[in-house]
Amino acid sequence: MALLIKGATLLSGKTADILIEGNKIAKVSSAISASCEKINAKGKIAIPGLVNTHTHAPMSLFKGIAEDMKLEAWLSKVRKAEEKLTAKQVYIGTMLACLEMIKSGTTCFSDMYFHMHEVAKAASKSGIRATLGYGMVDLGDEKKRKKELSIAEKLVKDWHGKGKMRCSIAPHSIYLCSKELLIAANKLSSKYSVPYHMHLSETRKEVFVCLEKTKKRPAYYLNSLGVLSKRTVLAHCVWLTKEEVRLLASKQVSASLNPVSNMKLAGGSTAPMPEMQEFGMNISLGTDGSASNNSLSMLETMKTLGLLQKNCRWDPRVANAQSLFSAATLGGARALGINAGSLKPGLLADIILLDKKAANLVPSHSLLANLIYSAHAGNITDSIIGGKLVMKDRKILTFNEEKVVEQAEKEKNKLTA
Amino acid sequence: MALLIKGATLLSGKTADILIEGNKIAKVSSAISASCEKINAKGKIAIPGLVNTHTHAPMSLFKGIAEDMKLEAWLSKVRKAEEKLTAKQVYIGTMLACLEMIKSGTTCFSDMYFHMHEVAKAASKSGIRATLGYGMVDLGDEKKRKKELSIAEKLVKDWHGKGKMRCSIAPHSIYLCSKELLIAANKLSSKYSVPYHMHLSETRKEVFVCLEKTKKRPAYYLNSLGVLSKRTVLAHCVWLTKEEVRLLASKQVSASLNPVSNMKLAGGSTAPMPEMQEFGMNISLGTDGSASNNSLSMLETMKTLGLLQKNCRWDPRVANAQSLFSAATLGGARALGINAGSLKPGLLADIILLDKKAANLVPSHSLLANLIYSAHAGNITDSIIGGKLVMKDRKILTFNEEKVVEQAEKEKNKLTA
Repeated sequence: MALLIKGATLLSGKTADILIEGNKIAKVSSAISASCEKINAKGKIAIPGLVNTHTHAPMSLFKGIAEDMKLEAWLSKVRKAEEKLTAKQVYIGTMLACLEMIKSGTTCFSDMYFHMHEVAKAASKSGIRATLGYGMVDLGDEKKRKKELSIAEKLVKDWHGKGKMRCSIAPHSIYLCSKELLIAANKLSSKYSVPYHMHLSETRKEVFVCLEKTKKRPAYYLNSLGVLSKRTVLAHCVWLTKEEVRLLASKQVSASLNPVSNMKLAGGSTAPMPEMQEFGMNISLGTDGSASNNSLSMLETMKTLGLLQKNCRWDPRVANAQSLFSAATLGGARALGINAGSLKPGLLADIILLDKKAANLVPSHSLLANLIYSAHAGNITDSIIGGKLVMKDRKILTFNEEKVVEQAEKEKNKLTA
Repeated sequence: MALLIKGATLLSGKTADILIEGNKIAKVSSAISASCEKINAKGKIAIPGLVNTHTHAPMSLFKGIAEDMKLEAWLSKVRKAEEKLTAKQVYIGTMLACLEMIKSGTTCFSDMYFHMHEVAKAASKSGIRATLGYGMVDLGDEKKRKKELSIAEKLVKDWHGKGKMRCSIAPHSIYLCSKELLIAANKLSSKYSVPYHMHLSETRKEVFVCLEKTKKRPAYYLNSLGVLSKRTVLAHCVWLTKEEVRLLASKQVSASLNPVSNMKLAGGSTAPMPEMQEFGMNISLGTDGSASNNSLSMLETMKTLGLLQKNCRWDPRVANAQSLFSAATLGGARALGINAGSLKPGLLADIILLDKKAANLVPSHSLLANLIYSAHAGNITDSIIGGKLVMKDRKILTFNEEKVVEQAEKEKNKLTA
């Protein structure tokens, strides 16, 4: 099975054809002919699909339920809604999230939640690529720990490597997991060679609690447990010292920065991106869930991260367009251990097209700058994931989008009743 | 001439018909019948059009020419391009900006630039509403001052009140204008009852220079010249003390906050929005020009301002959704002295429709929160300005959008040669 993208404009400004064979890019060149399905990409820009390394897809149903309130009140609202959340709603919410993600250029996401079999079914149905982890919480309870680990392992056994689904092991955080759980989780992550996905240093409070309890700052604590490796993906990484960044980088850990969520929940501070770059730490980007963002657009996340970093350091050169683009593509792929993130032969054919003639993307002094600082989700026209055309001219081909929207809207009242 | 919007969803969640007579809203009610042109707004959300109170429309041609560089280097790049900018290019750039603005929900903008007759012609052609000011600069030169004032006055005489065009008097800033110019400009603003539009306290440097030169902080300096009134609209207002905010509020001055541009150019600090609210100062929003943003989307500006303010104050309750929406609608209309900004009988019929069923706007727990924190420019479907349908289902009705995009792209190489 082959697919040929004809006449696409690359970020360099050059025009190229892209030949896809199976689920991989076979060739990128100026004039390829092949007798196979073709996509006319004249007037369109081709870039690698965006990789969202931290979200909670089912929470798309919670968009707008807890706004402009303090973290405690927000948590209480969200938890109350989560207590009632059914497996069916998790499926519906994930379908909605996948629809929003595909429409905004995301071709791969990494999730942490519960009822993860439903998330897997929905993601699989949608045609998107995903890395799925069951969010483990034991609060020091041994019985619960065993149960959590078995649920997490079952997910990996059932779904890892199935189609475009991969799995991760996802202990929630230092504050909701015992050290025994964090260590056991790492054994599973190592056993299956899958990412170790957790929250780290999102708020000042969790750093303080960790310091009090363990006498170590979070990164040092994780290191003392021996759980830091190149499989580790830490979401948020806001309240880190420079020495913690140095340590994490030396262990080849990946960061998943979630600037929109961090700003909206007002945790204060700003992730030390320049220090991460200084020490060569792999940086990827996430949107976080829809209850705290409330958008799954990675385009928005790239621009917001740039704005935040520049403003925080009083230096417009910080977080330049290239570094933001890399974080959302190659950095994400590297964090999740997938062979994607660039338009090169041999890599997974996860490719999106943008409307080159949209008013907000003209003129083309710098296609890269336009992508990062001017584009919005509505500019994405087509999405190819694993060599399969999932969206064509903004129309989803893999499922009934109207039905997904209708079902999601229908669940609204049940969620806040 | 009448127009009837049928079955629109208001932000309250209620469904309503909106009857427009001439250029004004005549009635908003649950079931209006009239024998006139109708717009089917079933499945669409109706809100007042967004008002952008500070931009430089022709700079849309400069999108992407000066990225991720220090302010001095940025200024030098932009000024070099401006020196070559022709009247024809100003027209083309403004058409492109109007296209982008209409497509992203802006129905009225306030501009400050040169070749303003071209800006007026283009804005007029596009069907958008605008308040246009010639950006005056005298650098203390009396001869230049007289010339600048006469150009500014001519614009008002030629265009103020012509169709949807209104004018302003726009001395550039304290650092580029003598006190004589600032005072003379205020006389013109008073004579014609038009806004007095200028930049204020965008960077630390200009505050420092003003203090050195006048021994007063910028707001006090302007007050000493007697130029502060309810006609005054000050763009940026970043580096203000609380006492300056108190003074400006007491003089009924309006602020135009430009968070995206401020963050991107990394001027440091954050406009004191909570203090502006405390003292009842009118707050409006601007995008600034495309060389420093690089988007004219007011949806993005609303969300970014919210994120920035919350993060800066470590408090998610700051800059809530309602206050951001008000700033982009009623606050903008008030700053410009136009009778718009709300869906009420008697007000100007500047109305936009959004796709209620877009994945990123579902479910509808809070339409307001979805609008501010989830919407993107691609969700805007229709635009009615002064009772006239300017965009229908994302298709511009007032001019040839493909031609505008083509012309803008054509000018690209001439601008940076």
